[in-house]
Amino acid sequence: MATATTNQVYRGIEGAVKKVPVELPVLGPKDVLIRITHSGVCATDTAYVPYGIALGHEGVGVVVKVGESVTQFKVGDRAGGGYHRDSCGYCKYCLTGNDIWCYDRIIFGEKDHNNGTFGEYYIGKETYLHRIPAGLSSEDAAPLMCAGATTYSALVDVCKPGDRVGIVGIGGLGHLAIQFAAKLGAEVVVWSTTSAKEKEAREFGASEFYLLSELEKITKPVNILIIAGSKYPDWPKFLNKDIFARAGTIIPLAAPHDKLELPAWPLFFDGYNLHSSLVASRGRHDDMLDFAVHHHIKPSIERFEMSEKGIAEALKKLAAGSVRPV
Amino acid sequence: MATATTNQVYRGIEGAVKKVPVELPVLGPKDVLIRITHSGVCATDTAYVPYGIALGHEGVGVVVKVGESVTQFKVGDRAGGGYHRDSCGYCKYCLTGNDIWCYDRIIFGEKDHNNGTFGEYYIGKETYLHRIPAGLSSEDAAPLMCAGATTYSALVDVCKPGDRVGIVGIGGLGHLAIQFAAKLGAEVVVWSTTSAKEKEAREFGASEFYLLSELEKITKPVNILIIAGSKYPDWPKFLNKDIFARAGTIIPLAAPHDKLELPAWPLFFDGYNLHSSLVASRGRHDDMLDFAVHHHIKPSIERFEMSEKGIAEALKKLAAGSVRPV
Repeated sequence: MATATTNQVYRGIEGAVKKVPVELPVLGPKDVLIRITHSGVCATDTAYVPYGIALGHEGVGVVVKVGESVTQFKVGDRAGGGYHRDSCGYCKYCLTGNDIWCYDRIIFGEKDHNNGTFGEYYIGKETYLHRIPAGLSSEDAAPLMCAGATTYSALVDVCKPGDRVGIVGIGGLGHLAIQFAAKLGAEVVVWSTTSAKEKEAREFGASEFYLLSELEKITKPVNILIIAGSKYPDWPKFLNKDIFARAGTIIPLAAPHDKLELPAWPLFFDGYNLHSSLVASRGRHDDMLDFAVHHHIKPSIERFEMSEKGIAEALKKLAAGSVRPV
Repeated sequence: MATATTNQVYRGIEGAVKKVPVELPVLGPKDVLIRITHSGVCATDTAYVPYGIALGHEGVGVVVKVGESVTQFKVGDRAGGGYHRDSCGYCKYCLTGNDIWCYDRIIFGEKDHNNGTFGEYYIGKETYLHRIPAGLSSEDAAPLMCAGATTYSALVDVCKPGDRVGIVGIGGLGHLAIQFAAKLGAEVVVWSTTSAKEKEAREFGASEFYLLSELEKITKPVNILIIAGSKYPDWPKFLNKDIFARAGTIIPLAAPHDKLELPAWPLFFDGYNLHSSLVASRGRHDDMLDFAVHHHIKPSIERFEMSEKGIAEALKKLAAGSVRPV
């Protein structure tokens, strides 16, 4: 296996995801070759189908070969990653643990277009791969590589003891946000379009559940508002101090598809803030994995075969909103 | 004077600001009666002309009478205030020094409509008045009661050593923001519509000055972006990582007159944050006065007579954009 010279990746070709062979490059000194065993599927993959790049950015697998200078991984270790692929290492962002904002960063989709976690192999730089803790199965770890990092990091940026965290949506990001927020000690309030979600919201750790059509039922406002879906909510309804506390912070988690249009008066008189977050810098990502193991936080997963058929099925269900992105 | 039973206030009547007598209420146990010597003029006053309330919220004067339980002020002291008038004293906001966000707060315009700092007297609760430090003249102190508190507090919320603070506009708020930011240790970059402002921007403490029409001339991005005017800038032009650094924070200072409409992609991929701020909580306000004295920070002022004629003239110049709100 260590002598493989060809990889199989999955990329969008004329609207469908196809398995195609690509040459496996010679490993650089800090590169790690991983045989992928599991990969999550995320809406961002769907967004990149038209661009023809190798898809998949939530991968976990087993190290099969390491570059000559690699010290952190050895053959046989489990490793994961796929979203954040490189940064400069010497700018202000990198030197303060905020490497995801490095101007020279490489994230999924920006470069490295023949390398994805939908595939046989994935090549990561050793310091952009994450050791999978013993207490975490590879299939549970995969979705944490993006969705887990995204939810945990945003919460840790903002959450303080005593906070009430409101989460709009209980999909791929939302169901992890509920678990992380609850274990970070917050009171968790979930809003959803359907009461069918109440039971699982409470199982994940929500202490309150309301329908989006009855916002006013809340009796004590949240002070953090997580937008866990890819659509923004009806802002004027949420930017109401009986629902969302003064000086509270909005965190939009998913890549949005429209403008962020906030009503100016409540922003000004009620002091709402907006915090942006993109997956996680690497130190935070490692913390997330430890935190998940310690608190038994797991994604809710659905299994698909890693094949053209399986990926097509997963993306179709994802698009229809009937699967959690795993 | 301590036996006065009538006050003269200025309020909007049919579009003009008129001097009208109002009964001076009996002082409550914690009330302080101030004979106003100076008051700033702010765009918020103009906004309240149609509502007929007693105008003025940046007042300084001399204590002429105190309620029976007042311990912090005595007759003859100089005191200032006028924007933030009350809060509950026992909520989470009040107990953490964030009293400006208290749900039971009273700010200028919300209640207390016969009491303003355009007038002969102003009545403040002693804990919502600020002692004017010896090193600060009353005419310089007045504009600090709102514009000074607004700029200082927002900066202190967000600024860290090594920050580069961009300030859009050099009017009533902007010229104070430049001074405070420079003395807080930041590199200050000013954008203005006209090169006529460059000299004074640099005198206030800016180390760089650019026209709004040549944003791209900046060679190192700012990481805090203060919107000091009442109009929002062209967001897509500013939300560019060569001008405004990734993970930077936008602070809109003035009451806006339109929606805040941010482009979603740079928010997401470049991690821009938004921090809202409203004047200052009281502890921060006191710090601002001490900081201003220590660093010789003063508003640039223009004098008008406290009369119907003087106020009309001041508001007219303010509306025309040809005076700093003082």
